[in-house]
Amino acid sequence: MLQYWWQSVCQPLDEEARARAAARQAQLTKPRGALGRLEEVAIDLAALQGCELPTLERISISVFAGDHGVVEEGISAYPQAVTGEMLRNFVRGGAAISVLSRSLQAPLEVINLGTVEPLEALNGVTFLPLGPGTANFTVEPAMTVAQCEAALLAGRDSIQRARTNGVQLFIGGEMGIGNTTSASAMACALLNVSPVSMAGPGTGLDRDGVALKVAVIQRGLLRHGEALSSPLEVLRRLGGFEIAALTGAYLACMQEGIPVLVDGFICSVAALCAVRLNPEGRSWLLFSHRGAEPGHAAILSALDARPLLDLGLRLGEGSGAAVAVPLLRLACDLHQGMATFAEASVTDRLE
Amino acid sequence: MLQYWWQSVCQPLDEEARARAAARQAQLTKPRGALGRLEEVAIDLAALQGCELPTLERISISVFAGDHGVVEEGISAYPQAVTGEMLRNFVRGGAAISVLSRSLQAPLEVINLGTVEPLEALNGVTFLPLGPGTANFTVEPAMTVAQCEAALLAGRDSIQRARTNGVQLFIGGEMGIGNTTSASAMACALLNVSPVSMAGPGTGLDRDGVALKVAVIQRGLLRHGEALSSPLEVLRRLGGFEIAALTGAYLACMQEGIPVLVDGFICSVAALCAVRLNPEGRSWLLFSHRGAEPGHAAILSALDARPLLDLGLRLGEGSGAAVAVPLLRLACDLHQGMATFAEASVTDRLE
Repeated sequence: MLQYWWQSVCQPLDEEARARAAARQAQLTKPRGALGRLEEVAIDLAALQGCELPTLERISISVFAGDHGVVEEGISAYPQAVTGEMLRNFVRGGAAISVLSRSLQAPLEVINLGTVEPLEALNGVTFLPLGPGTANFTVEPAMTVAQCEAALLAGRDSIQRARTNGVQLFIGGEMGIGNTTSASAMACALLNVSPVSMAGPGTGLDRDGVALKVAVIQRGLLRHGEALSSPLEVLRRLGGFEIAALTGAYLACMQEGIPVLVDGFICSVAALCAVRLNPEGRSWLLFSHRGAEPGHAAILSALDARPLLDLGLRLGEGSGAAVAVPLLRLACDLHQGMATFAEASVTDRLE
Repeated sequence: MLQYWWQSVCQPLDEEARARAAARQAQLTKPRGALGRLEEVAIDLAALQGCELPTLERISISVFAGDHGVVEEGISAYPQAVTGEMLRNFVRGGAAISVLSRSLQAPLEVINLGTVEPLEALNGVTFLPLGPGTANFTVEPAMTVAQCEAALLAGRDSIQRARTNGVQLFIGGEMGIGNTTSASAMACALLNVSPVSMAGPGTGLDRDGVALKVAVIQRGLLRHGEALSSPLEVLRRLGGFEIAALTGAYLACMQEGIPVLVDGFICSVAALCAVRLNPEGRSWLLFSHRGAEPGHAAILSALDARPLLDLGLRLGEGSGAAVAVPLLRLACDLHQGMATFAEASVTDRLE
């Protein structure tokens, strides 16, 4: 049987570093557990980075972009030209993720995998053209086999570049008008749930818009039927270039041993797909936030994910993950910088 | 009728700045509302700071400390000496709030209002002695009238110092073994609820410990009876030096027009007391996190507060508010740094 690259073994976590970090947390000058999720984050990062005192100085953000054929069904509140326009905005510094990248001092790379409207060469955008957007999944598979595999590899390539720079945490983001429809369709197929429970307003559909989106997804699911029993075919038939690239990036992180901070709805669907393709890699994924899209909860639940934030975010671009970075950094600072009871001559609790 | 200082008028918010900030948010290159709570934070800060583009460079943290007479009833998992020991830890840099103060570049001041065990002079700790801890509230009022008024003034003095330095956001913190018992008793009196629903494990009581705490609070409530109908008497009879100082600090912020980021359970009780003493000042309070202490939810609900974080924190010291600061700062960065649709030549949605 053919072995795909993403089926190769994932890195193990360092359970000895986890134990040392947990022991340290129990000695810091605070009631045990009083820093709640921040203690867990520090201990998890210790296991992921393989050291008792993790740090997050080098964070890499890759935003993948691509257009979606299903947009011709009228499922987006925004015109499709916005995908390309936002690529310009990313590299000129005006998008949310551009601002966050600067504030966090986390370098941003932007990879254009194929927009409907041709774009001029943009300084700061890597152009890996797989086609003028995907095909309409209500009519045919969104991607050919070759396109899907190339998109997965594009994600892996980003991780290999990041690894060269000694990245300590990876954030993936996405841009693609129509991609909540594509991601919702994938989630329905992967979780075997109805589009009624999964489809939401995305960037801002009204009730009629959501009803149309449900019907479009339903047609896609019927069109591909039994072929959707494999996660790879779910990705190829219903996904998008940017979702496949995210999936590939996450799988590469699992294999290279790079912790991932997963963004919102669309990234979580890519994460779910990655975990279905290589289940043992789940531990490399940290989840940043619970988004406003109603279907996100079911996806997080299927991944047994407990995101750190719940701020009603629904922007994508990796922005929600970026917003959570300072919490991870403060968790590391506290873990490293606090004194132990012994160091500070503070009396521990009466046991 | 005697007019106390804290009954004087609070600063109005700048509703024109709020409207300009809201108009700007609607023009930034993202679906409207897609940054969720971060948009609200930026708009609220605009109204609080009186400018369309708020910033949070100058943040001041004051931690107030004091001991509690009620500890002799056996309601804490930690010995009372820890209050003083932690003061040393604060100024030597080993406590959580010390680490956070450094990471956030937010100066920390520590005010000791009275520990049971005498402390040596500590560089970085302001000593304003009101007594060797409060009295045991199951026996007599925790504070005399003079002590309570002095503690309120100590809080106001901190704000006047911060104001001189052009503070843009104030964080108060507290340290005092036994102070969840004191704060829980105050919350029961202010909200007219039973200690059974309000008392929780604090720094780590087991089930028997919580049952004892409930009984001790019940005795305190019975002891003071009808005298608890005024919020000032609730504070004086059941509170602590540090809780009164926090209350005074919050009231001074309301009057000086300084936004407050409220920490967890104990700070929220001080905030509730401040709002009862001067209800029109409520808008100056932002709430950072929902803590692990079970009674916190009822206090937040009474204040109509929607905290930003829910990380299971229960440390105090102002630490939870400090952890939320980067979210506020990123909200300001996004608000200021993102391009508008017009600036970026991005097509807005089809209306």
